[in-house]
Amino acid sequence: MNVAQILPYDRTFNFSAGPSCLPVEVLEQARDEMVNFRGSGMSIMEMSHRGKVFESVLEEAIADLRQLIGIPDHFKILFLQGGASLQFSMLAMNFLEEHRSADYVLTGTWGKKAIEAASLVGKTNVIFDSKSTNYDHAPRPSQMNYSENPCYIHFTSNETIQGVDFLKDPQVHGTFVCDMSSNILSRPVNMENYAMIYAGAQKNMGPAGVTLVILREDMLERVPRDMHPMLSYRVHAENDSMYNTPPTWGIYVCGLVYKWLLKTGGLEKRLELNQDKAQVLYDAIDQSDGFYTGHAKKGSRSLMNITFRLRTEEMSDQFVKEAKKEGFDGLKGHRSVGGCRASVYNAFPKAGCEALAEFMRHFAARNG
Amino acid sequence: MNVAQILPYDRTFNFSAGPSCLPVEVLEQARDEMVNFRGSGMSIMEMSHRGKVFESVLEEAIADLRQLIGIPDHFKILFLQGGASLQFSMLAMNFLEEHRSADYVLTGTWGKKAIEAASLVGKTNVIFDSKSTNYDHAPRPSQMNYSENPCYIHFTSNETIQGVDFLKDPQVHGTFVCDMSSNILSRPVNMENYAMIYAGAQKNMGPAGVTLVILREDMLERVPRDMHPMLSYRVHAENDSMYNTPPTWGIYVCGLVYKWLLKTGGLEKRLELNQDKAQVLYDAIDQSDGFYTGHAKKGSRSLMNITFRLRTEEMSDQFVKEAKKEGFDGLKGHRSVGGCRASVYNAFPKAGCEALAEFMRHFAARNG
Repeated sequence: MNVAQILPYDRTFNFSAGPSCLPVEVLEQARDEMVNFRGSGMSIMEMSHRGKVFESVLEEAIADLRQLIGIPDHFKILFLQGGASLQFSMLAMNFLEEHRSADYVLTGTWGKKAIEAASLVGKTNVIFDSKSTNYDHAPRPSQMNYSENPCYIHFTSNETIQGVDFLKDPQVHGTFVCDMSSNILSRPVNMENYAMIYAGAQKNMGPAGVTLVILREDMLERVPRDMHPMLSYRVHAENDSMYNTPPTWGIYVCGLVYKWLLKTGGLEKRLELNQDKAQVLYDAIDQSDGFYTGHAKKGSRSLMNITFRLRTEEMSDQFVKEAKKEGFDGLKGHRSVGGCRASVYNAFPKAGCEALAEFMRHFAARNG
Repeated sequence: MNVAQILPYDRTFNFSAGPSCLPVEVLEQARDEMVNFRGSGMSIMEMSHRGKVFESVLEEAIADLRQLIGIPDHFKILFLQGGASLQFSMLAMNFLEEHRSADYVLTGTWGKKAIEAASLVGKTNVIFDSKSTNYDHAPRPSQMNYSENPCYIHFTSNETIQGVDFLKDPQVHGTFVCDMSSNILSRPVNMENYAMIYAGAQKNMGPAGVTLVILREDMLERVPRDMHPMLSYRVHAENDSMYNTPPTWGIYVCGLVYKWLLKTGGLEKRLELNQDKAQVLYDAIDQSDGFYTGHAKKGSRSLMNITFRLRTEEMSDQFVKEAKKEGFDGLKGHRSVGGCRASVYNAFPKAGCEALAEFMRHFAARNG
């Protein structure tokens, strides 16, 4: 196969788990606007964040995201820095009160890190833990052993490393806080089911270095006074993400991605496309007579990160190596779990899933 | 004057205080490499931070910066997030010990914010404060009333808002920590005079969203255990800025700027160029028979941010307005001090200083 015949600019099929592929139209626009942004006489990177041009870029990004997800007015949209990892800490610093506790649902690596950070602040209750089956599934609603009156209930909607996804919004009422880093904007969500959603941008939205926080406004009343300003949601909310210089380039690129998502049919359509794409690869796994084994259980299978193994770790490595030669990049599973992982975020083309599925069949035939 | 005849791409003279102008060669390269980075088949924004391509970008940026400043091996170079504002807090969290105190030299707005953040952690001693003269000068060495045994001594080498610069490295031995956000890489510095230098990238290095920290390695021993990982210099140092996904795009652009500085003669040459450029504007102020008044006292005049006033705030506003029409952007002084400010960072061309000086003379002749 010659990938160059399929993709423009000799671009490769990029299965990276993050940072990860962006729509080529977005890259083209960022390229074309680089040296003189829309007649301003300067690059978007060079302009004051307090000037009219950047302010309108920020406002448009917020308005487009509000439309895309359907975010009601009583939620604040913030663009922060530090990735989900800093949110693990900020979340607890802002909302985990003394003499109370927070519930954590543990379905993989990132949820574990969120718990570790929160435990530096206060008491956490792990109300579900799939460690015994090596983090291969999300809980059924009946398996969630909520505490009496937690400060919040935290879960990771999609565990990037394990490829385990809840696939649904929470089914009950509660102060749900969700790390949506690796599946945000991949499907519709109902904001009314959440108190807070956060996500690093570098998987489904834009470049690394921007962190999106969507926060229900009444939560701001819980934020302690005398916090360090850069760690306080109240300070960021009161300053509309402009307490200090925000990551302007990243916000701009996220805004381009939001426009691309709106133009291509929004999140209902995106879910269809993502289900189609993921199905192509899960079919290749399920129809391989056990040559490939999926990691996540059916019912928890991620549409974004398709995790699978070959019969041995050596064969997985061989697979990744040969795939790379054919133009499939980034298929090695995370070092902590091994095997293979095909990350097929929003911007990843279906043609890449089909091409990989074909390669998987050929590889199995040669080595089966 | 037709600015378009001077600058390529119809670019304007951009006097913004930050984010601020970048070398046009850097923008051109970023543009040209956008869609397929050096044959990798993807944008630099789309690739794994743990892959070989980005790792070599990071390593080159570090090596080039080490060469440019002359950073000895016993200093760590970190690329973090959150701007200088987060450093104000991290610095104190990491190094301001209980039952001890830190010395702060206060010469303007940013130094004040650094003190406020540190005061949330522990005891600060303000050992110099130029408030009584409205923050118009840096201290002489004899005016520094150091404490007996401070955890560190903090100063802001260039106050962006007031345009007040120390112009020199510390003249005595001590644990100096310097916020160099607005004059880093504008002149040579001797690292041996510092325990730590930090700087937001968006003035003299690259886009907003990257924060450079240069830290003497022995300081890491002082970092408390059980800190939140994203706030611990030890964690960032042990992981070579890769504890979590770093701001890859920003690091890449900073790296291009470092190469541009090396190619154009390094920091000795840069100091000459900056002195030349600033002199053009200070001359226009000093030779205006009092039509323009500089804010910073001679001996503390910034080479990066030239602050001045006209006889009334109304006339300052009129100046800014007419200048903007002629293609001089970003001359309004910071809202907290008023007047005018011409920020002429490394990438700002001397032709822009000469053109502004000419405009200043014409404006004075018309309105004097």
